[in-house]
Amino acid sequence: MVRFVSLALASLAIAGSNAFTPSSLIPQQKQQKVAFTTRLNQAATTSTTAFNLDEYLMSKKGPIESALDASVVSRIPQTDKICESMSYSLMAGGKRIRPVLCIAACEMFGGNQEDAMPTAVALEMIHTMSLIHDDLPAMDDDDLRRGKPTNHVLYGEDVAILAGDALLSTSFEHVARHTPNTIAPEKIVDIIVRLGKCVGAEGLAGGQVMDLECEGRGVEGNDVSLEDLTWIHTHKTAALLVASVACGAILGGASKEDVERCEKFALNIGLAFQVADDILDITASSEDLGKTAGKDLEADKTTYPKLMGLEGAKDEARRLVQEAKEAIVGYGEKADPLLAIADYIIERKN
Amino acid sequence: MVRFVSLALASLAIAGSNAFTPSSLIPQQKQQKVAFTTRLNQAATTSTTAFNLDEYLMSKKGPIESALDASVVSRIPQTDKICESMSYSLMAGGKRIRPVLCIAACEMFGGNQEDAMPTAVALEMIHTMSLIHDDLPAMDDDDLRRGKPTNHVLYGEDVAILAGDALLSTSFEHVARHTPNTIAPEKIVDIIVRLGKCVGAEGLAGGQVMDLECEGRGVEGNDVSLEDLTWIHTHKTAALLVASVACGAILGGASKEDVERCEKFALNIGLAFQVADDILDITASSEDLGKTAGKDLEADKTTYPKLMGLEGAKDEARRLVQEAKEAIVGYGEKADPLLAIADYIIERKN
Repeated sequence: MVRFVSLALASLAIAGSNAFTPSSLIPQQKQQKVAFTTRLNQAATTSTTAFNLDEYLMSKKGPIESALDASVVSRIPQTDKICESMSYSLMAGGKRIRPVLCIAACEMFGGNQEDAMPTAVALEMIHTMSLIHDDLPAMDDDDLRRGKPTNHVLYGEDVAILAGDALLSTSFEHVARHTPNTIAPEKIVDIIVRLGKCVGAEGLAGGQVMDLECEGRGVEGNDVSLEDLTWIHTHKTAALLVASVACGAILGGASKEDVERCEKFALNIGLAFQVADDILDITASSEDLGKTAGKDLEADKTTYPKLMGLEGAKDEARRLVQEAKEAIVGYGEKADPLLAIADYIIERKN
Repeated sequence: MVRFVSLALASLAIAGSNAFTPSSLIPQQKQQKVAFTTRLNQAATTSTTAFNLDEYLMSKKGPIESALDASVVSRIPQTDKICESMSYSLMAGGKRIRPVLCIAACEMFGGNQEDAMPTAVALEMIHTMSLIHDDLPAMDDDDLRRGKPTNHVLYGEDVAILAGDALLSTSFEHVARHTPNTIAPEKIVDIIVRLGKCVGAEGLAGGQVMDLECEGRGVEGNDVSLEDLTWIHTHKTAALLVASVACGAILGGASKEDVERCEKFALNIGLAFQVADDILDITASSEDLGKTAGKDLEADKTTYPKLMGLEGAKDEARRLVQEAKEAIVGYGEKADPLLAIADYIIERKN
């Protein structure tokens, strides 16, 4: 299965940026590499139970929610409606996993939370845009999200489409306007490239179109391969997580090699997240999930368990998380938040 | 009527950037101002007939079309479909007025076309995204645009929504990735702020939501005021034109004061464009327009002629164009392309 992650990395690398080139292809200073590998071997099997993830997430929750809340404020009566619609979905809760990943990666390299926060907010705006547009009748046609009416149910399809567009454009504006001026503008430009790419044809929009195409293919009886499935989730799910961790790392002062390690970490947890999702759809109760379980089976959707069997998928999720952790465990204690998030992905119940 | 342009400028200024503050509010070096005003008075009444706009537009068409064509290319089979959908709408023709404005403004300050081209492409991507999403069944529900099937008719609503999203995110990526490295990254960051703002709550998405609200208000019998109408068009139409000219000016090396003059020019031609559109809906034949004439009257839509009378609206369009030209005529011959575009706006037949 290593093959598929390599394929995913290679396909992201084709996109014209070196961002996703596996670190093994990059010439490195040999001594530095040996030191990192030694630390890695020492730490790879170390348990991270000493680190309290719940406490960490709680400590980040307040600042993230405040920054999100302040990011969409209507300043004139004419924008009240669109801001209300944008804010409704942006403030609808959720784990804020992308902002947390961004801040944790920034702090891992000695950066501070304030430097990462505008990018963290932008990542959540992009994620929210994708949820609003996904829920539209022309897409997944969902009336409820996290137990609340979806944006278009409350504001109408037209406003929901526009609120998504506004969140997407505001995400770039927010990074460019609010990143502290202690951060070099070259870094901000780099972050804009990464954010733009992870939404576009080689990001979540492209992943979704390929997903739609594969659904059609399934109907026609042509099987969706494991390679297709991995491509879809690499772009639909993992690309935004890769951008979250990589942008955080860049803001924290990471080197090119550091950023590549972070990308490898994030790509693997992104894929593990999707494998775990597919497993939960089979094994969890609707009550635990907070949504109808068994939907994939009913829709005869191509999933990891369908292609690899349930046990095979569980092994794959564990392998992906292990590979993710190995990429960054050499950073020692500073990597604890990211390592704990990786574990959480396969341990979660919903 | 000067009041309404001032209101529009003020409302754009509220948005948190100084970008739209009228230049009269900015302390200026007195001597410089006097020199500019003298040139302005000399030139304001000068005809621009010597300048051949058709020839100018033709000279820009090739490079712009090439740059647009190269901006969305599928590099892997998995992105063929989304890139085809993005490219279909991006390459569907049109006057390319936003790219031309951007390049003309850049050249007015001595910049070159290559510096402005990535931003020019981004502006057309943003414009195209807004057309794709506008045409959706949940919005204007149009099956045809420029005589060709709209994006969703050809690719389905889901792909059309995603292609719009991908064009919007790619626009920011394109500027950040392809602007020549002779341009200071601070300027690129400034351009990202302006592009983001002109699409968001205080840009075209916000203008469209307010337009939808006013349509509803009309039905309820509460009249839409001239102030509302001007707010809508300032944000729905003019904001992207303001960004086009301002970003071009910045890339060309314009000073803050220069950029403000350019913004005043673009805001006025943006509003004049809309007034002229409303007039053409009444006076032009369907054949000339290339679309059904008289649609506004039939829908009882609030328009400039409805609020000001046909002659009042014609006077207003002329006044706006005159005010636009006065803002930049002091730049002499270098302003000819922009001045000619301003004239074209009220002289056009469709």
